[in-house]
Amino acid sequence: MEHNLRDYFEKTLKEVAIDCVIFGFHAGELKVLLLKWKGTDGWSLPGGHILLDESANDAANRILMERTGLGEIFLQQYYTFGAVNRYTHYSEAELLEKLEITFGKGFFEGIIFRRTVSIGYFALVEFDQVSPAPDWFTDECRWWNLADVPALLFDHNEMIERALTALRQHIRNQPVGYNLLPEKFTMPELQRLYETILDRQFDRRNFQKLLMSYDILEKLDEKRVGVANKSPFLYRFDKLKYERAMETGVAFSM
Amino acid sequence: MEHNLRDYFEKTLKEVAIDCVIFGFHAGELKVLLLKWKGTDGWSLPGGHILLDESANDAANRILMERTGLGEIFLQQYYTFGAVNRYTHYSEAELLEKLEITFGKGFFEGIIFRRTVSIGYFALVEFDQVSPAPDWFTDECRWWNLADVPALLFDHNEMIERALTALRQHIRNQPVGYNLLPEKFTMPELQRLYETILDRQFDRRNFQKLLMSYDILEKLDEKRVGVANKSPFLYRFDKLKYERAMETGVAFSM
Repeated sequence: MEHNLRDYFEKTLKEVAIDCVIFGFHAGELKVLLLKWKGTDGWSLPGGHILLDESANDAANRILMERTGLGEIFLQQYYTFGAVNRYTHYSEAELLEKLEITFGKGFFEGIIFRRTVSIGYFALVEFDQVSPAPDWFTDECRWWNLADVPALLFDHNEMIERALTALRQHIRNQPVGYNLLPEKFTMPELQRLYETILDRQFDRRNFQKLLMSYDILEKLDEKRVGVANKSPFLYRFDKLKYERAMETGVAFSM
Repeated sequence: MEHNLRDYFEKTLKEVAIDCVIFGFHAGELKVLLLKWKGTDGWSLPGGHILLDESANDAANRILMERTGLGEIFLQQYYTFGAVNRYTHYSEAELLEKLEITFGKGFFEGIIFRRTVSIGYFALVEFDQVSPAPDWFTDECRWWNLADVPALLFDHNEMIERALTALRQHIRNQPVGYNLLPEKFTMPELQRLYETILDRQFDRRNFQKLLMSYDILEKLDEKRVGVANKSPFLYRFDKLKYERAMETGVAFSM
């Protein structure tokens, strides 16, 4: 990629980019996937450009696949970031200077560093299934707990904040969990996911009653073993019913 | 503008545009503002380009102001349209041919007609306060009943559909009416607005009870006169409380 960066940029839209907030859930924590840019201490969301013959949504799916190896993931466009200056914590000059030490003086001339509007997408992925992969531009790609996210490049902290707001709006109107939990899970695990996203506690019985009323869950004839005291039943989502509920909407009113 | 179109395009982003779905409400009908392009029978949403020193949101507000004369309007970004080909009912060649009859051969060479991603905004405006204004590019600007909207230029029919979906989502989580109704209105008028947007009927008492529970309405010591049979009380929104409800959200669960 280093060698044909200019070729690549000839094949993409220049003023529009894509950035993805990829949420994962593990051990009761909501996480987000970040990349560290080579030769800098700056972290950013995974993102990229739209090929001339590719739709914005396809580009977002491609970027998600490149970074996580996952396809067919729930990916939602939530906001387009169109501020004149999208450099918040690191100035353009500061970033360019550091990158040129690694990539060579003039390497980015006329490309990348121009005003760009970025379309924000968020995705919910199952933590265990992801193999985070850096690209040619970055030397690290890993999960960060939401609470520990540092000052990011560009306006990416705002992007995460708005994605979280969108996710919370989403969870109030549509079911969540299909791509965030393993195939089989317990009711307390599902409740923990909802509590983590919404940053609130719910009554166990009311939660179970409401979620069962959506008619998207299948209670299995199987229990989680090895859990202290109790052996809770396992559940899984009925994919067809879940997808229908995504279309028609459900009201999470707790 | 005709004379310095090229200058104007030098000062704007080229691959990103803005389109606004401006909803108005009048006589129990939801309406949308459309423009007819000069020398064609093609109608479109009001839209435009983002100046290099202007944010996307500022551009949307400027466009809204130019078309309606209204400032400080609730304007919400709802989706960015990024398909590779956004010409649905009229092909690019067909449109260009008609426009060149009016504007001259080669007038648009290298400008306008290139792949553009468009950021969609919707606005809710008080029908009576708007003076629709065509721009240099269009010869008519007027309200259309939603039900009567013709086959539009580009993907603008899809834009209206998605805006309506976004408006319906919005009304389920936030109050609506401040910019759509006159300053003073009756409860049946407010109910009619909700019924029109959601395309459903509500029980009069339940509706009133729910809306009053939001604590955003002020019942006035005044009645609408000249209405057959009854003289219903007038209400108005308490602007501060309304704005707070926009922040915190309300659940319209009927």
